[in-house]
Amino acid sequence: MVIRIFITGGTFDKEYDEITGKLYFKDTHIREILELGRAHIDVNIRTLMMIDSLEMTDSDRKLIVDNCKSAEEDQIIITHGTDTMTETAKVLANGNLEKTIVLTGAMIPIKFGSSDGLFNIGSALGFVQSLPHDVYIAMNGKCFDYDKVKKNKTTGVFEKLSIKT
Amino acid sequence: MVIRIFITGGTFDKEYDEITGKLYFKDTHIREILELGRAHIDVNIRTLMMIDSLEMTDSDRKLIVDNCKSAEEDQIIITHGTDTMTETAKVLANGNLEKTIVLTGAMIPIKFGSSDGLFNIGSALGFVQSLPHDVYIAMNGKCFDYDKVKKNKTTGVFEKLSIKT
Amino acid sequence: MVIRIFITGGTFDKEYDEITGKLYFKDTHIREILELGRAHIDVNIRTLMMIDSLEMTDSDRKLIVDNCKSAEEDQIIITHGTDTMTETAKVLANGNLEKTIVLTGAMIPIKFGSSDGLFNIGSALGFVQSLPHDVYIAMNGKCFDYDKVKKNKTTGVFEKLSIKT
Amino acid sequence: MVIRIFITGGTFDKEYDEITGKLYFKDTHIREILELGRAHIDVNIRTLMMIDSLEMTDSDRKLIVDNCKSAEEDQIIITHGTDTMTETAKVLANGNLEKTIVLTGAMIPIKFGSSDGLFNIGSALGFVQSLPHDVYIAMNGKCFDYDKVKKNKTTGVFEKLSIKT
Repeated sequence: MVIRIFITGGTFDKEYDEITGKLYFKDTHIREILELGRAHIDVNIRTLMMIDSLEMTDSDRKLIVDNCKSAEEDQIIITHGTDTMTETAKVLANGNLEKTIVLTGAMIPIKFGSSDGLFNIGSALGFVQSLPHDVYIAMNGKCFDYDKVKKNKTTGVFEKLSIKT
Repeated sequence: MVIRIFITGGTFDKEYDEITGKLYFKDTHIREILELGRAHIDVNIRTLMMIDSLEMTDSDRKLIVDNCKSAEEDQIIITHGTDTMTETAKVLANGNLEKTIVLTGAMIPIKFGSSDGLFNIGSALGFVQSLPHDVYIAMNGKCFDYDKVKKNKTTGVFEKLSIKT
Repeated sequence: MVIRIFITGGTFDKEYDEITGKLYFKDTHIREILELGRAHIDVNIRTLMMIDSLEMTDSDRKLIVDNCKSAEEDQIIITHGTDTMTETAKVLANGNLEKTIVLTGAMIPIKFGSSDGLFNIGSALGFVQSLPHDVYIAMNGKCFDYDKVKKNKTTGVFEKLSIKT
Repeated sequence: MVIRIFITGGTFDKEYDEITGKLYFKDTHIREILELGRAHIDVNIRTLMMIDSLEMTDSDRKLIVDNCKSAEEDQIIITHGTDTMTETAKVLANGNLEKTIVLTGAMIPIKFGSSDGLFNIGSALGFVQSLPHDVYIAMNGKCFDYDKVKKNKTTGVFEKLSIKT
């Protein structure tokens, strides 16, 4: 069983630019993470874009859905900025794919000492291999149905909704 | 839903003693890990023992089974040394508990910069919340049935067996 | 012998805000650094300001000079943003204090896994305890006279000047 | 000015063997440290041995002295296990070399998240470039004359002696 991982950017992959003092995107750190986790799983990694999720457009989301559709694998992890993760999840759900798709990300960039990225990728791998076909958001140890979750903008924490959105 | 976490020691929790230059056990680092993962889940943590799994006796394993039995939770993670993890898993399976029990550990102590512990706990949390009642071993991104896995002593990697042990 | 450490901010002490995704100042990390270095030295730490050095004004610099003057210690380390470190050094030199003053900082925030802060504070402590009274800039293993150094804005590296500025 | 760095092993360079669960020596981490410190200094690095300093013999120490003698540089840092660092320092002092020689090490291996190695190398670089010709021990922010220091075996801390040893 091969797992597909799509990279779209987000806090997860941000780095610190020593010259400008600003955060920016260079390459994804997913391979470092899988190496650190000594992950002995078969994965296909593809970077679709490298953007802040606040800047993600409809056509970006279409690209993500199209790639999920055409992927041979039916277990897919998508790394994504947390700000609009639920939006992309809904667009994916509308695609009605017969796949298990788990979106995840990080509150702190992986390159920071205190990142939650390694933990989140670990749990996303657990969920994607175990759950039935559907679209999920896995953050901070929890897994949410795509239509029963929102990000609390004050605390930064993803919370379960009792009523579908 | 509350998840129970039992601590038994293993590489996972080893520390470096500055005075003697040896590795030893002090306290578990599971809380640091959950904090680093910004885990927003309800967990009950209990340290059962703090030992190298090569020193684990039959009565130690009985203690682990008894604690899994009497725990109110039916989702249980056990941190455990990798050397005899499969043995403890079999003893647990013989207990025929109606629970999802996931054993996990680390190849490198958590206090080392390059530990796989954060990743493994993340994935164990994913598996324990998703899989049906049974006993599993979750290491390095994979999850194995308790009776279809062995640790390769040369490479240190857990491998799937096609025939039950 | 007690060493005085003045904190003024700079990249050194920047943190990542999980909610806004921006870098900001909270508290100084100098105590963590001294603890990590297991530093067994007597230090007096005082935070004078917590700012980006591009925003440092003449009155901020006057405050720094005044504090160096009134400090009882004659070995002083100042943590400072790198962008205007040489300017502050010149103002300090004009103060003609009979003290060894070493300015240092970091190219990468301490809270990032790959920071040079621990290294730079280590070397600043080496230089401040060994060099004669004067004002110096210690960065990346080197120590420069305050009037023979500039920061290369393209590479971010401090370089020695053969002619006084 | 070029600085010579001799590697002899010690806690500094110890690593964790995932298979055996034991600490061992592979390669030195001095280059990683200089890179992390973004050190822009000219250094010549040479590994003389890779041993626990408790196992260091008279002929090992002779090798170290001989290498210090024949080195072109007159600023020399030696990484060394802390247990017998003062012994080697005395043998070096008996060599009466017209050089500044600074021995340093670490209480915690560099590969551990909480190592003091980066800090100690930083301060050793500060001291070796500033102090007059002699033999010194630089640990934890302090620099000691070779004959006025001992390691407190209970606390692991190097302490100043008021009377020469």
